[in-house]
Amino acid sequence: MVDLIEKFLRTFARRGRSIILAYDHGIEHGPADFMDNPDSADPGYILKLAREAGFDGVVFQRGVAEKYYDGSVPLILKLNGKTGLYNGEPISVANCSVEEAISLGASAVGYTIYPGSGYEWRMFEELRTIKRDALRFDIPLIIWSYPRGGKVTNETAPEVVAYAARIALEVGADAMKIKYTGDPKTFSWAVKVAGKVPVLMSGGPKTRTEEEFLRQVYGAIEAGALGIAVGRNVWQRRDALKFARVLSEIVYGNKKVVEVLGGQS
Amino acid sequence: MVDLIEKFLRTFARRGRSIILAYDHGIEHGPADFMDNPDSADPGYILKLAREAGFDGVVFQRGVAEKYYDGSVPLILKLNGKTGLYNGEPISVANCSVEEAISLGASAVGYTIYPGSGYEWRMFEELRTIKRDALRFDIPLIIWSYPRGGKVTNETAPEVVAYAARIALEVGADAMKIKYTGDPKTFSWAVKVAGKVPVLMSGGPKTRTEEEFLRQVYGAIEAGALGIAVGRNVWQRRDALKFARVLSEIVYGNKKVVEVLGGQS
Amino acid sequence: MVDLIEKFLRTFARRGRSIILAYDHGIEHGPADFMDNPDSADPGYILKLAREAGFDGVVFQRGVAEKYYDGSVPLILKLNGKTGLYNGEPISVANCSVEEAISLGASAVGYTIYPGSGYEWRMFEELRTIKRDALRFDIPLIIWSYPRGGKVTNETAPEVVAYAARIALEVGADAMKIKYTGDPKTFSWAVKVAGKVPVLMSGGPKTRTEEEFLRQVYGAIEAGALGIAVGRNVWQRRDALKFARVLSEIVYGNKKVVEVLGGQS
Amino acid sequence: MVDLIEKFLRTFARRGRSIILAYDHGIEHGPADFMDNPDSADPGYILKLAREAGFDGVVFQRGVAEKYYDGSVPLILKLNGKTGLYNGEPISVANCSVEEAISLGASAVGYTIYPGSGYEWRMFEELRTIKRDALRFDIPLIIWSYPRGGKVTNETAPEVVAYAARIALEVGADAMKIKYTGDPKTFSWAVKVAGKVPVLMSGGPKTRTEEEFLRQVYGAIEAGALGIAVGRNVWQRRDALKFARVLSEIVYGNKKVVEVLGGQS
Amino acid sequence: MVDLIEKFLRTFARRGRSIILAYDHGIEHGPADFMDNPDSADPGYILKLAREAGFDGVVFQRGVAEKYYDGSVPLILKLNGKTGLYNGEPISVANCSVEEAISLGASAVGYTIYPGSGYEWRMFEELRTIKRDALRFDIPLIIWSYPRGGKVTNETAPEVVAYAARIALEVGADAMKIKYTGDPKTFSWAVKVAGKVPVLMSGGPKTRTEEEFLRQVYGAIEAGALGIAVGRNVWQRRDALKFARVLSEIVYGNKKVVEVLGGQS
Repeated sequence: MVDLIEKFLRTFARRGRSIILAYDHGIEHGPADFMDNPDSADPGYILKLAREAGFDGVVFQRGVAEKYYDGSVPLILKLNGKTGLYNGEPISVANCSVEEAISLGASAVGYTIYPGSGYEWRMFEELRTIKRDALRFDIPLIIWSYPRGGKVTNETAPEVVAYAARIALEVGADAMKIKYTGDPKTFSWAVKVAGKVPVLMSGGPKTRTEEEFLRQVYGAIEAGALGIAVGRNVWQRRDALKFARVLSEIVYGNKKVVEVLGGQS
Repeated sequence: MVDLIEKFLRTFARRGRSIILAYDHGIEHGPADFMDNPDSADPGYILKLAREAGFDGVVFQRGVAEKYYDGSVPLILKLNGKTGLYNGEPISVANCSVEEAISLGASAVGYTIYPGSGYEWRMFEELRTIKRDALRFDIPLIIWSYPRGGKVTNETAPEVVAYAARIALEVGADAMKIKYTGDPKTFSWAVKVAGKVPVLMSGGPKTRTEEEFLRQVYGAIEAGALGIAVGRNVWQRRDALKFARVLSEIVYGNKKVVEVLGGQS
Repeated sequence: MVDLIEKFLRTFARRGRSIILAYDHGIEHGPADFMDNPDSADPGYILKLAREAGFDGVVFQRGVAEKYYDGSVPLILKLNGKTGLYNGEPISVANCSVEEAISLGASAVGYTIYPGSGYEWRMFEELRTIKRDALRFDIPLIIWSYPRGGKVTNETAPEVVAYAARIALEVGADAMKIKYTGDPKTFSWAVKVAGKVPVLMSGGPKTRTEEEFLRQVYGAIEAGALGIAVGRNVWQRRDALKFARVLSEIVYGNKKVVEVLGGQS
Repeated sequence: MVDLIEKFLRTFARRGRSIILAYDHGIEHGPADFMDNPDSADPGYILKLAREAGFDGVVFQRGVAEKYYDGSVPLILKLNGKTGLYNGEPISVANCSVEEAISLGASAVGYTIYPGSGYEWRMFEELRTIKRDALRFDIPLIIWSYPRGGKVTNETAPEVVAYAARIALEVGADAMKIKYTGDPKTFSWAVKVAGKVPVLMSGGPKTRTEEEFLRQVYGAIEAGALGIAVGRNVWQRRDALKFARVLSEIVYGNKKVVEVLGGQS
Repeated sequence: MVDLIEKFLRTFARRGRSIILAYDHGIEHGPADFMDNPDSADPGYILKLAREAGFDGVVFQRGVAEKYYDGSVPLILKLNGKTGLYNGEPISVANCSVEEAISLGASAVGYTIYPGSGYEWRMFEELRTIKRDALRFDIPLIIWSYPRGGKVTNETAPEVVAYAARIALEVGADAMKIKYTGDPKTFSWAVKVAGKVPVLMSGGPKTRTEEEFLRQVYGAIEAGALGIAVGRNVWQRRDALKFARVLSEIVYGNKKVVEVLGGQS
């Protein structure tokens, strides 16, 4: 429903833009992701970081939410997940229901699809149930749309990312998380074909330099994205809070990269 | 039920023939299909086009219907879909229930089967549920019958198309969408074996010339088809509305191809 | 239940023997089966033929029953089916429930199993549900028992047919359709191991000569079969009604093949 | 529950030992098993044999019970089965529910598992349901524990049979049927690890001589088995009743093999 | 819930640490595990051993609990299991529901996952149901987290064990059982990323010397583990009770290995 987009925006884009702190890496990649900044292994640290940075939300798996979530930042409960140890045909199934997500305090639920996978149909099938429940419980559904397997050879190719965006619209997302194409021009096509559905750029692995990541974020915003869902590029830095504030200046403050980097030096 | 055929005809063939504007390409083929006419990426544009051309219906996936459908043209909600990124054994599963389709405003539901696929049985199994619900909620069921995989080597071979038509009848379609065989003579056999179930010719990819497509449409109508379900051959043209009117003259107006093309030049 | 056998016999063997007109070829083989006698593509023609020939029943898939069945001849609703385009491991799943079959007017339901198939277990599993519902709704269940795949190299070998018959008994058939072994002696063993469950010989493809088929029918009856379930050998002939009457003389009238053929010439 | 063991013993081991006449060969092996003694094809003959021999029970599949069971001998309804035509990964699924078994007159239900099979997990999953229902309806569950596939190279190796016995205990059997290891010493280890759960030796194929089979039975009893579940070694003999009485002398009468064989000559 | 962690600790760590006697080897490895100490084949012996050693709990499969559990030691009912005969893609499915576990007297339920397996998703899917029921019935869920298959080449590699620990947290464990990494330093990282969820070290196969095992236990405790879940290293020893008391001195009594070994000589 268009209403659920509005509901999503009211909670997760209060300033008209959105920065979400993603933190499902414990299951997706494993604790090796926490090594650059060992504090990041603690979900309590993540909540504090999101709160102090003034971010719009955090993304947790059910177990982390159950043991740590304190309501201080809006929660997106990621319903499915797979481990990085798995190397079969891409598939991620829900380990939590929409109803349980709500009882854990979630203001939105997240679900990953891997279009192109030999299990694509299996995820679409489960998504039908998730979507039904999201409507029943009146909670926005955010789709992580990551084409993988099948005919996909490059997950960030512009036509693949645009296709990802369109699929999320077609199957009923109220917001979506897609990868960056590398430049604002091609990303703006992905944003266009996503139609009314707000687009969050996926942060991805920590870039070599801060500038590199900031340019991606700036490009995504320029291309019409609502904002970003970022994890490693924030909490893998030991000065995570400081960098989070720089990010905010770009996303919320409409600053250019040179301005914020200049402001740093 | 024969009643559901009548119900289908009352809504989608008010003038005794039918033109349906298909628009599930966003999931089936991806947004590359929208590039020839970028306006076509916008479902609002499609609704306006169908309305102004006086078409009998539009075909949307659940997400597009949810975010854009306004009731101005009768809706066929396509319940299942797969992406063009998938290259496994053909299978398409429902991402929407019949009940939800109705709550989205649908006047009919659509479901694709791929007879011949190694997952043929999986789709027949799901179709049982779809059909049960369509009967329960008294809504016509349109089957997209596209043999693929297994022993199928040519999807438009006359015997394959006729088989497709018959399968749709046997499993309970109230209307069907099948591919064109290439000539009216062989297509009329497909129409015959479809029995009482109305046949819509699938528009397929944009033809090299307008005339080529118009001759297919004329042939299908001549062979006894109720009409066509067309997407790319209309909205991939920048003068889509104009071409839609030419189509209408053939389908509704019983004009010949030379007449309408003459009228154009 | 033995009661359901009696119920089956009361409806489908009023004269103590049974001839059923099978007509699920539209899904199983495709409309090519209708080409020898194009009238046969029309289910209305089939109903008229069964009625005029005084046959005991017809076999339809759900879609055909829904659009054409008129109650003039008892109906066996075939619950499952697969297409001839499929070439994977044999499997046929229900596209109709027992309850729906009854609402379509069925006096019995039919279900095919392919013992030996890699999906044998999948069909046994579904059969449990079918059988449960057949008992609940007090309607006879006829099993098409066709060993295929696995260790089966010859589907009409006497030991394979006898095994088929026994399986149908063991899993709960109230009547069964099995292939002919080629001679009355071996077929009588199949009839014996079927126990109390009535046996219908499957008609199979049209034989080269009428005599050839009549000899099979005579042999099956001689071996103790209740009758036959025949399709192509009747309705693929342009003089179908005439041949149907010849068949009746053998099955119901206890005539020998030479008698009826003499009567014809 | 220990109570269900007692319930099993009260019905199926009235004399402190147990002989069960197994008769699911019609589905598992096919009617070829009946050829040595064609009378055995008739379930009525089997019931009479069990009754006259004073055996403790018979084992039927649902269809046979439905059409023939008369209550004259306690019934074990075998819930699952597969055919000998199947040569895929071992799997046997229920074609009958516990509730239906009871309505067919069963005093216990039987279920086969094939530990080691690639479908081992599928059978454990179904067993959960069977066990739940057996508890709900307060009926003993007998597990046929037959390791097959996977790492199993010899199904009667002592360590395999002992493992089979233990698995049956672990997953909730109230009695079990396992193969003989070949000697009392190794079989007694299987009986030991089965713990409180009574063990029935599986009769297996007809042995070359009567003595050979009798020695197996004697060995199993000596090793602590409650008794035997025997089919072919009884009803494949034309003097089945006579041999049944010899068996009884060993199992119930504590006779030695030389005694009963001497008694015969 | 954090509450369920507390509930787990109240029952299974009364002295602030925990020793659980694992005994699901009958299904997982087979009775060969009982040969070193044949008494151990008897679940009654195990209960007595746990009781006399003052351990915090025992782990049984449903069948063993049903036939032997007497309430004298708190019970962890292991809901799933696979056999050592199976050599397919790792998968273990529940053969018992949470509700049944409770009716068998369980104070906690256990569930194994094999992250990395081609069936990883299948276990996550079932875990959703298990977790839902554990919450509904307010019973702690202990996850056996054993990466296997997929990219896993060494199940006790520090990064694999840490990943295992984190997965258990992410999917909702209230306690977890993981393998030892070989040294306290790397194991402490696993304990750290497990966050609030208590960690039990898995005992594993009997070590060559008692000292070797005691050093592992000491290392795990030093690294922050709550305790151990040990089977073979206790009950495969003929002086199991004596060794159990030595273990207790380390786990509960904070003794060093040299102290307890010295105390022994």
